[in-house]
Amino acid sequence: MPFELYYWDEIQGRGEFVRLALEEAAADYVDVARQPSGMAAMMKFLKGATEASAPFAPPFLKDGDLIVSHVANILLYLGPKLGLAPSQESLRFVANGLQLTITDFVAEVHDTHHPLSTNLYYEDQKDAAKQRSTDFIEHRIPKFMGYFERTVERNGNGGDHAVGSQLSYVDLSLFQVIEGLRYAFPRATKGFGERYPALMALHDAVGKRPNIKAYLTSERRLAFNESGIFRHYPELDQDV
Amino acid sequence: MPFELYYWDEIQGRGEFVRLALEEAAADYVDVARQPSGMAAMMKFLKGATEASAPFAPPFLKDGDLIVSHVANILLYLGPKLGLAPSQESLRFVANGLQLTITDFVAEVHDTHHPLSTNLYYEDQKDAAKQRSTDFIEHRIPKFMGYFERTVERNGNGGDHAVGSQLSYVDLSLFQVIEGLRYAFPRATKGFGERYPALMALHDAVGKRPNIKAYLTSERRLAFNESGIFRHYPELDQDV
Repeated sequence: MPFELYYWDEIQGRGEFVRLALEEAAADYVDVARQPSGMAAMMKFLKGATEASAPFAPPFLKDGDLIVSHVANILLYLGPKLGLAPSQESLRFVANGLQLTITDFVAEVHDTHHPLSTNLYYEDQKDAAKQRSTDFIEHRIPKFMGYFERTVERNGNGGDHAVGSQLSYVDLSLFQVIEGLRYAFPRATKGFGERYPALMALHDAVGKRPNIKAYLTSERRLAFNESGIFRHYPELDQDV
Repeated sequence: MPFELYYWDEIQGRGEFVRLALEEAAADYVDVARQPSGMAAMMKFLKGATEASAPFAPPFLKDGDLIVSHVANILLYLGPKLGLAPSQESLRFVANGLQLTITDFVAEVHDTHHPLSTNLYYEDQKDAAKQRSTDFIEHRIPKFMGYFERTVERNGNGGDHAVGSQLSYVDLSLFQVIEGLRYAFPRATKGFGERYPALMALHDAVGKRPNIKAYLTSERRLAFNESGIFRHYPELDQDV
């Protein structure tokens, strides 16, 4: 039975971190909301009053009767099944910790364009968004990216890997974060190559993997857009 | 060897979710930063250039050589060891999913007083904080609390439990969230008893557990204060 991934049908968003793992492993999966009547199927789960494990929000993964929600939790669950988690059990907690740091980073990316409320349009919180983005570019990008750079550097047995000696879902997620940041903040990310060489080597290595490369050029890969987490609003990027 | 918990020494903050689990289980642990020279010991880890699994931020737990970071990850690790996780493996992913929803809720609580930047004082972002808090009280509290209420209700085999048929770390965390919300927003949380009866029954049951009760009145339990996540700024509470 294929894995069923439930996520909004028109954005990469948080679902993309799961899609990349499924694609790298050439796993049998259905991106449910992108099938005919798929959005209705997803909403049924979200409103479902009877499911004991009804999720709070997409993405969630259905594997048989089990519903697993939240990106890091889905990847924790899928990692060993897809050969994308460290084999040593203790390192799986390290991988999960890194993934949760990525989760926090992604939430901060979202808040650059929605600092006051998810119930307001971006246009109605532009001034606050500019303040938050300025802080994000000055302080938060260097803090998170510097941390991940040191993590890859320190992982001596790993080469281009964040944890362990083989590719893990954490590497795929770091690739996606960098892709997203470059899309959203082309000016602020210009010097990434010099500033974060280990991380950018990891990024480039992921982008060259055959299954990832095939996926990125397929119709299954949605384009970045201004409904997702990573949005390109030039006025929020680093000032010229 | 005792577990070593590393977290800021003067606030409940995110560390409190871990403390509650350790206390309920009467586990052998050291709250490192609250010991003499403890803050220095913690900062050494955060700055540590050599530790492969150096954490991004507190809290983190050291168990022998292993360092586990992020609340949900620490609880995932400790849960089975402390008898505070469901015994069925699939339910552990459900518990982790719920804990990650709590994590998101707690991050939103933090952002009610710091919507623009963690590098600015609250006083320098008061107007934005008022807007974000208003939205939080109107939309986000009902959304999260309603979700957790339905979760407890639906968990038929559980009585006062969010997942499974016995106490889990998720129940302890829900207790703490409710304690914190009541401290921060006494006016907005006034009707919690009528609005969220299942959740409040769970909260009250946790508060009556002997080890939790003893902990809450001990010197180990720090008081809520305006340096933590849950801050009582009357001007951010629901308008009279």
